[in-house]
Amino acid sequence: MHRMDASPMMPEAPAAREAEDALQELARLLASDMTRCNQTIIERMQSPVALIPELAAHIVAAGGKRLRPLLTLAAARLCGYEGERHIRLAACVEFIHTATLLHDDVVDESQLRRGLSSANAIFGNKASVLVGDFLFARAFQLMVEDGSLEVLAILSRAAATIVEGEVLQLVTQNDLETDEARYLEVIRGKTAALFSAATEVGAVVAEAGGERQQALARFGLDLGMAFQLVDDALDYAADPAKLGKALGDDFREGKITLPVLIAFHAAEGEERAFWERTIGAGEQEAEDFATAQALIQRHRAIERTLERAAEFAARAKGALAVFPPSPLRACLSASADYTLHRAR
Amino acid sequence: MHRMDASPMMPEAPAAREAEDALQELARLLASDMTRCNQTIIERMQSPVALIPELAAHIVAAGGKRLRPLLTLAAARLCGYEGERHIRLAACVEFIHTATLLHDDVVDESQLRRGLSSANAIFGNKASVLVGDFLFARAFQLMVEDGSLEVLAILSRAAATIVEGEVLQLVTQNDLETDEARYLEVIRGKTAALFSAATEVGAVVAEAGGERQQALARFGLDLGMAFQLVDDALDYAADPAKLGKALGDDFREGKITLPVLIAFHAAEGEERAFWERTIGAGEQEAEDFATAQALIQRHRAIERTLERAAEFAARAKGALAVFPPSPLRACLSASADYTLHRAR
Repeated sequence: MHRMDASPMMPEAPAAREAEDALQELARLLASDMTRCNQTIIERMQSPVALIPELAAHIVAAGGKRLRPLLTLAAARLCGYEGERHIRLAACVEFIHTATLLHDDVVDESQLRRGLSSANAIFGNKASVLVGDFLFARAFQLMVEDGSLEVLAILSRAAATIVEGEVLQLVTQNDLETDEARYLEVIRGKTAALFSAATEVGAVVAEAGGERQQALARFGLDLGMAFQLVDDALDYAADPAKLGKALGDDFREGKITLPVLIAFHAAEGEERAFWERTIGAGEQEAEDFATAQALIQRHRAIERTLERAAEFAARAKGALAVFPPSPLRACLSASADYTLHRAR
Repeated sequence: MHRMDASPMMPEAPAAREAEDALQELARLLASDMTRCNQTIIERMQSPVALIPELAAHIVAAGGKRLRPLLTLAAARLCGYEGERHIRLAACVEFIHTATLLHDDVVDESQLRRGLSSANAIFGNKASVLVGDFLFARAFQLMVEDGSLEVLAILSRAAATIVEGEVLQLVTQNDLETDEARYLEVIRGKTAALFSAATEVGAVVAEAGGERQQALARFGLDLGMAFQLVDDALDYAADPAKLGKALGDDFREGKITLPVLIAFHAAEGEERAFWERTIGAGEQEAEDFATAQALIQRHRAIERTLERAAEFAARAKGALAVFPPSPLRACLSASADYTLHRAR
């Protein structure tokens, strides 16, 4: 398989296979729940207006790992839940996620998503904005059917927080004054808030009680932080065949991510001027991305970003200590490792 | 004041002044509620991410008549409600409306809104999409704070229906096969659904009971239909100084509205070819809008559209018959006339 120059920057991971297996084991343990969740997703994205399910199917059915609904299902089961409510709420979480993806791709003008043409590239920005709105509204309808005001509170707060993270990302774009704390605030909003809500609502339907609910919210939050840190590393260092989207998107958009912050703060003279031109001023030429990768490698910015991710993953795993050992707990714990070693 | 050629197509309305007065009387009766509603709107559009309230203020504070929240406040009071919940729900309705406006302007690529530059023209499409999402999420947070699952069900269903109407509008764009029933379905979704939800939730907080709740839902629905029919007439026949947006937007976008449908179905030969080229194929030249206005005038399409609007307005007023006469009922009834005679 073709490997690009940058790939060696991602640590060779014998653990990657193992982590991937653990995620598959989690999906296997929850296979019946997941099947019903997928059925709910398909059923409830229907509308008499045919373009809505057509566009939604493009992005929903295209798959992805369904990590967020899996977390809701896993959290509920980990708390000993034996009912059905977690199925619908998992679908709900996936709808919110999908709505944000549709709007993100419009906002980022992305052409690729999960290795396929993005919905906006096929159906246009207008339909993508509107179907995102539809899925968001439908998510709330599902929550109302469930009937828990606590679940509604958690997910509506998460929805607002996601947007705050994304707007903050928009205003910090091209701004090299952005510090790490601000960057962490962006990813906490845009990614970790929904991971956290996804696991927390699992605990809520299980009536797991404050301590376990907080532990699962914490687990989701830290897992989400790890996930996004790795995502931001991959944009400079992945094998593009596995990434499912163009490498270097973040660079071209002038997004301030941790690899850039690390390399920029270690930079002097010409290097500093390079970042100020390409990210700060957004003036880029074709060969700049390769230079960016080289500078990031020189300052070990990928490794250092992944170290931060590993810290969050370790904290996530630690949060599970309130639960007695079980195959499900082991798999959830291993999903944190998957987050670190995933190829996309 | 400069009046354009098309203005005489709008019936000269001695009733217009009277209807405007009635709406002001409604606002006066509800002045204290409306002041608190406006405070709630300002308070709850805040966010630590400064761009959010900044952009939201541009569109929220720019005003407009606040017709939808006024309807919620009026409906609650008409049912004898003496509490405070309707204030927050009225703000909620305005947030949902504002979110759809922000997304509409992105979808329609509008440059003007309420006589000012649209948010997307000033802040860009990205920020408009995201702040729309924020206001939508915040609306649901407000509903959750209110705590009524019935209100949540009504407004989340309305939110989904609005989008269905807008997507249907998108897919019928440039499609002259669209019939009147389909057109009415579009405006029922994109406009009347929220009017209906706005009045219905007023009845819900007042615990008005099934008959009065249904009557108010019906009133809002028919009022919304009348409102949108007039809106669609105005796009071909308004005084542009009063319209607050560019005349002919619908024409240029190839939107299928009732004036176009009436003129198209009455057309033969060259006229038919004109509509097929300008709307069907979307091939337009600068002078085409004036021709469209002339054809619409020839077939009395504005008058006939306004007659349909008047039928809906009359039905709306009829729905109020279940309430005993009162100054508030009289004003609400007159607001249906305002809808017919408004200059924008």
